[in-house]
Amino acid sequence: MIAEQYKEMLNGKSVIRELSEYATARGKEIGYENVFDYSLGNPSVPAPESFKEAMIKLLTEGDAMEVHGYSPSLGIVSVKEKVAASLNRRFGMSYTFRHIFMTAGAAGAIAHAVRAVTVPGDEVLTFAPHFPEYHPYINLSGAKLKVVPADTEKFQINFAVFEEMLTDKVMAVLINTPNNPSGIVYTRETLEKLADIMKRKSEEYGHDIYLISDEPYREILFEGVEEVYVSKLYDNTISCYSYSKSLSIPGERIGYIAVNPACKDAETIVNMCGQISRGIGHNCPSSIIQLAAAETVDDTSELSVYETNMNILYDELIKLGFTCVKPGGTFYIFPKALEEDAKAFCEKAKKYDLILVPGDSFGCPGYFRMAYCIATEKVERSLPALRKFVETEYGKR
Amino acid sequence: MIAEQYKEMLNGKSVIRELSEYATARGKEIGYENVFDYSLGNPSVPAPESFKEAMIKLLTEGDAMEVHGYSPSLGIVSVKEKVAASLNRRFGMSYTFRHIFMTAGAAGAIAHAVRAVTVPGDEVLTFAPHFPEYHPYINLSGAKLKVVPADTEKFQINFAVFEEMLTDKVMAVLINTPNNPSGIVYTRETLEKLADIMKRKSEEYGHDIYLISDEPYREILFEGVEEVYVSKLYDNTISCYSYSKSLSIPGERIGYIAVNPACKDAETIVNMCGQISRGIGHNCPSSIIQLAAAETVDDTSELSVYETNMNILYDELIKLGFTCVKPGGTFYIFPKALEEDAKAFCEKAKKYDLILVPGDSFGCPGYFRMAYCIATEKVERSLPALRKFVETEYGKR
Repeated sequence: MIAEQYKEMLNGKSVIRELSEYATARGKEIGYENVFDYSLGNPSVPAPESFKEAMIKLLTEGDAMEVHGYSPSLGIVSVKEKVAASLNRRFGMSYTFRHIFMTAGAAGAIAHAVRAVTVPGDEVLTFAPHFPEYHPYINLSGAKLKVVPADTEKFQINFAVFEEMLTDKVMAVLINTPNNPSGIVYTRETLEKLADIMKRKSEEYGHDIYLISDEPYREILFEGVEEVYVSKLYDNTISCYSYSKSLSIPGERIGYIAVNPACKDAETIVNMCGQISRGIGHNCPSSIIQLAAAETVDDTSELSVYETNMNILYDELIKLGFTCVKPGGTFYIFPKALEEDAKAFCEKAKKYDLILVPGDSFGCPGYFRMAYCIATEKVERSLPALRKFVETEYGKR
Repeated sequence: MIAEQYKEMLNGKSVIRELSEYATARGKEIGYENVFDYSLGNPSVPAPESFKEAMIKLLTEGDAMEVHGYSPSLGIVSVKEKVAASLNRRFGMSYTFRHIFMTAGAAGAIAHAVRAVTVPGDEVLTFAPHFPEYHPYINLSGAKLKVVPADTEKFQINFAVFEEMLTDKVMAVLINTPNNPSGIVYTRETLEKLADIMKRKSEEYGHDIYLISDEPYREILFEGVEEVYVSKLYDNTISCYSYSKSLSIPGERIGYIAVNPACKDAETIVNMCGQISRGIGHNCPSSIIQLAAAETVDDTSELSVYETNMNILYDELIKLGFTCVKPGGTFYIFPKALEEDAKAFCEKAKKYDLILVPGDSFGCPGYFRMAYCIATEKVERSLPALRKFVETEYGKR
């Protein structure tokens, strides 16, 4: 008998996917260049040349048996050494290869982290607005995801509610900064306060509370925003990274877990990840992709387009009277809809070939997400449509 | 608190890994060329040139945004179409892309298959001797692996015990032919009898019993052995394939699930795999590796060395008086040890720098495995050591 749990999930439609499919279909009618598709969070700039060169060098000069051979179950040691050295250089950490576990992107990283520090029935807290996939990531591991409602004023953290929800059952807190969908970067103050509360509660409850820090947008940080490395502020931190956005290689499924050396049982947690892999059939990311990513560990794609797009959109949104917190990074912006029901708002936007995603599935109704990882030229062309949409549907403001 | 289940697994040492580490350490003393290391099942021939060429072409001529972009959650459609067409051509099946789900090797395939057709508490049967990793693969999914004792006469199937163990609780049967560690290929007769019993019991119990067919060695078949495509004989078959051995790219983690189009809920099972992935953080295999594998879907590495090695070893083992079923494929052979305790036997072999793996962890004590995926020249050089070992420890036979 097939497993009903997964069969039932087939009925739950992804709002983002539906909108993206609508955009593609509409593109076939009027030309995709005329659809202002802000639905999908896919990088819009190619991988850096250095990544391509590293791949070709491995293929032409490397030993095929090694380049395509089994990776050790915890990842290729030389790769992990380069990852550790890069993090140490940039953030003043003291990782060794023993603190790094190579994964299939951030999704793979979170899948391992949650299994390492929770058992079925434990609670994991996250903060709205949040990446919708956190629900299956956490809940299908057996742990239970609980969402702290958003601080809609600044999209930092609603600490009063957080403290209430941080009960004895919570074994891990999952954060995502820079944040999908708000684009907001947690301030040092926010992270310090978060760390203080978690330390205090760990002591009160007599068990560790781990911080799982999902950081795929770490490299997309805008001008004037302080870069704070989360793990610096809280010892029991498991950083989950993906090269999907920094190197524009989301399909290559490459990332890592970096466990703070000061974390309790740090090396044991990394070793446990190797065991967890045996159960979930993950094994390691592709060997050649690991090796190429290590060669380009400090490189990124040309990411500046995202800040350019953000500034154009933010200014226009403010001009049009939207309430909107200015993003500090990522390629997302998360304004307040012009009516209470963001779904109705986004539905109306379709008439103007604007594809916007309602905030409901991010745990934050009444807001909407725009993923501006598209060409700047298209962002500019979308402004008249945005203006017309707002003025026609909601009147001059 | 960290998850004790995985922490405890760290204490369980892998016999194969320990032997391999011993071989490496011994190699440092006397030169690795003098260690007759039959411990590891790693391909010993490089990937075909066509794979390298396909990779380089994708990197130099492909669109980087596409080559490295997200794969759809069920795998890249054009890749799945090529996989389906190849299977249809070779085995007279009628797969479409809708029956194929791309995975991170056979491990990933089994992880998805078992979650699709069992729920926690269900039983899965397999047959000794078997790949030791089946224990974590199945048990960590929540299902329970039960092992049918070996038919040590021919390493086919002990049907009397199988029928007894095939109770109402069994939702899936997991087979591996050509087999690791025995090298044996199930005959058409064996597979037909297996299918008959499973059909009969499905009807008796009023629920489907799925056949999960683990086929990473499908392409390594020796002369005179009939190639039988398992799925042809039983509708409810989920074939789990890996390119690790056929293309010698075990580190690239690429394979697939092919669900028989006549299987009940075939397309639903494939779609469910996409949902299962969300829970285990697997997502898809690397996009570029998917695309390159599709270009070389009918190619293999130069695999003939394995048969050459098998013949040399088999003849010598028989000459030395071993009881041994002649392998029909793979790069393994599984003779009976010359004393009841195969662990003691393999321990003694180390004195002659022969690294053999006791059959205990394959669920078949009293036997030992030799992985002859090494250079033929080394196999030949190992024969005097083998002879000396046998004659010294067990007397002229």
